[in-house]
Amino acid sequence: MSVLRIAVDASGGDRGVRSILPAVDRAARHYANVEFHVYGDTSIEPEIERCSFAQSRHNIVVHRAGVSVEMDDSPVSALRHKRDSSMALVLKAVADQQVDGCISAGNTGALVAMGMHFLSCYEGLERPALCKAIPVVDAQVNRYKDSHILTQSYLLDLGANANCSAKQLAQFAALGATLCAVKDNQSQPSVRLLNIGRESLKGSSVIQQASLILDEKSALRYDGFIEADQIFQGLADVIVCDGFSGNIALKASEGMARLVSHRLKQAACDGVINRSLAWLASPLIKQWQKSISPDQYNGAYLLGLKGTVVKSHGAADQQQFFYALKLLIDQVSQHAKYPVNEMETRFQQAIGSINN
Amino acid sequence: MSVLRIAVDASGGDRGVRSILPAVDRAARHYANVEFHVYGDTSIEPEIERCSFAQSRHNIVVHRAGVSVEMDDSPVSALRHKRDSSMALVLKAVADQQVDGCISAGNTGALVAMGMHFLSCYEGLERPALCKAIPVVDAQVNRYKDSHILTQSYLLDLGANANCSAKQLAQFAALGATLCAVKDNQSQPSVRLLNIGRESLKGSSVIQQASLILDEKSALRYDGFIEADQIFQGLADVIVCDGFSGNIALKASEGMARLVSHRLKQAACDGVINRSLAWLASPLIKQWQKSISPDQYNGAYLLGLKGTVVKSHGAADQQQFFYALKLLIDQVSQHAKYPVNEMETRFQQAIGSINN
Repeated sequence: MSVLRIAVDASGGDRGVRSILPAVDRAARHYANVEFHVYGDTSIEPEIERCSFAQSRHNIVVHRAGVSVEMDDSPVSALRHKRDSSMALVLKAVADQQVDGCISAGNTGALVAMGMHFLSCYEGLERPALCKAIPVVDAQVNRYKDSHILTQSYLLDLGANANCSAKQLAQFAALGATLCAVKDNQSQPSVRLLNIGRESLKGSSVIQQASLILDEKSALRYDGFIEADQIFQGLADVIVCDGFSGNIALKASEGMARLVSHRLKQAACDGVINRSLAWLASPLIKQWQKSISPDQYNGAYLLGLKGTVVKSHGAADQQQFFYALKLLIDQVSQHAKYPVNEMETRFQQAIGSINN
Repeated sequence: MSVLRIAVDASGGDRGVRSILPAVDRAARHYANVEFHVYGDTSIEPEIERCSFAQSRHNIVVHRAGVSVEMDDSPVSALRHKRDSSMALVLKAVADQQVDGCISAGNTGALVAMGMHFLSCYEGLERPALCKAIPVVDAQVNRYKDSHILTQSYLLDLGANANCSAKQLAQFAALGATLCAVKDNQSQPSVRLLNIGRESLKGSSVIQQASLILDEKSALRYDGFIEADQIFQGLADVIVCDGFSGNIALKASEGMARLVSHRLKQAACDGVINRSLAWLASPLIKQWQKSISPDQYNGAYLLGLKGTVVKSHGAADQQQFFYALKLLIDQVSQHAKYPVNEMETRFQQAIGSINN
C-alpha cells in the first residue's frame, strides 16, 4: 500500500495543540500507512515533550513554523503578515505536492484567503466553499422523483463566505454536484437551494436570482427550494446556501442534538422507575447516542481549491479532531480514484453556462 | 372569569381548514371561557358542515370572508387586493377591539404587511418581528454572570424580515428584552446577537454594526455574539438575528429533533435484543419524545404591533395548530397583567438611543 502524506496545522483552533496532538498520535497508531507532517510554532514544543509522541511514532514528522494565525486575525492581515505560520505552511506543503492534503482547525477566513492564494480556485470558480455530508433520516428512495437512493446529503457553504452573490451560489451548486458525482458515482445529483419557504417569492433577491440561474443556465438537476426542517429528510443530494445560513443550520442542529441527548439523560434520572428503565435500556441508548453524536461529523471539505483541504471545527476536542483527520485521510486515499484535477474537469462541465 | 375573545384565520396555511377547524373545535372544548371568532371564505363551509362544530359549541362564531390570501401572494398585492380576506379581517377585528388577539397560519409576508397596516408598529420600531421561546438545556444558572436562572430563551426574528439593517436588529433586541422583562419579570434580560463566530470580526458588516449599536447606544445588557450551537444552552434571555437566519436556525433544529427521534425508533427495531430493550424502556422514551417534540413549540408572537398576533407554522397539522392557539390564549389571558400599551411603553424605554 502506498504511503499517504498529510499536513496538520497544530496551532489552529480554540484548544490548539492540546486537542490536536493527542488526536494525531491516535491517528498515527491507527493509520500506519499515513505520514503525518505536523506544523506548529514554538508553543507546541512543551506539548510534544509532554506526550513525547513524535519520538514514539515512526510516521509523525514535526516541522517548525514561525507564528500562529490567531482566531481574530483578519484574512487580509493573516495573508500579508503570516506567511510562515503553520496554516500557511500546511497549504504550501499541499501546493508543492509534499503532501496529499492538509487540515486546520484555525481561523476560517484566513484559511480561505491563504488557500486561494497558495492553491488557487478551480478555473471559473470565484470562491471555495466549506462542504460536508450530513446524515438523513433513512437510506430511503428520494421521494420526489424516479431517482436513486439517498444515504446522505451534501450541505454547502458552511461558513467560508458569509455573503454570497447569486452567481456564487450557483457555482457552489455545481461544486457540490461535482463532489457527489465523483465521490458517490451519482450521474445526475439533485440540487436544491436552502430558503425560508418553498414559494418562488420567498427569500432574498439573491436567492431568487440564484434559483433562476440554476433553472435556466445550468445543466444541473435543480429541484427548487428546500426549507431547513427538511435538510435531514434526504430530499436532495446537494443543498446550497450562503456560508452564514449554512453555518447557522449546521450548528443549530448540533445544538439541538445535544439538547435532546441531555433531555434523555434528565428523563432517565427522574425517579426510581425511570432510572431502572434507563439502566435496562442503556445499551440501546448508548448505541443511539453514538449514531447521532455531532462529534463524528466534525470536519468539512474546503471545496474548489486545487488541493485537498479539510477544516475542523475551531472548538474541536481530541475526539472530534480525530474524526476530521479521518475525513481527510479517507479523502486523500481516494485520490487514486479521482485525482484533484479530475474534480476540476468535472466541475467545468457541471458549471455549464452559469458564469455567462 | 371574564370572557377572552380571539380571532382565527381559518383559510391560511398549507393544510388550511382541515387542520385549523378541528384544532379550534378541540380548543373550544378545552377553553370554555374563550370565544373563538373563526374567519374563512366559502371554502371552509363544507368542512364546517363535516365537523358541524359551530352548531355544537356555544363559544365558536363563524364569520364569512371574501377571499383567501394565498401562500404565493406578494405582501404588496395581498395588502392592495385582499382587504376582505380572512387574514385582513382577523387583524381588523384586533384593531377594532372586537377581539383580544388573532392567529394565522398564512403567508408570513402578507401577515406582516397587513399587520403593519391595520395595527401599526410601536412608535420607534420600523418592522415587527416573529419571536418565540425556545427550550434550553436546563433550568440552570446562566453561566456567564452573577445572574438569574434561565429556563428558556427568546429567539427573534424568525422569518418576518429576510433582510434586516443593523438598526432593525438593535430594535429587535429591545423588543425581545421588553417581552422578557414584562412576561418573565426579568429586570435586566441579557441579549446576544446570533453570529457565525464569537470574535468581533466575524459575520457580515450589518451584524458587526448592530453589535456596536447595542454596545454603545443601548441601555440593554448586551453580552456579545452567540453561535448557533449554543442557542439551547441558556446563555442569553434574548437571541437576536435576521429573519432568514432565525428561520433557518429554528427549522434546522426541528429537523434534527425529528431525525434523532427517527434514529432512536430505528435503533429500537434493530434485532430482538434492541426491540426488547425498547419495549422495556418505552414509558421513558415516550416521555422524552414528548418533551422534545417540536410540535409543542408551534406558534410565534408577531411582536411590535399594537395588538396581539400569533403566527402558526404554515404546515401545521391539527395538533400543532392547537399548540399555537394555546400560545395565543395564554398571551391574551395575561393582558390584564401587562396590556399591549404597557409593552409599548416599556419598549420605548428599552430602545434608549438606538434610533439616534
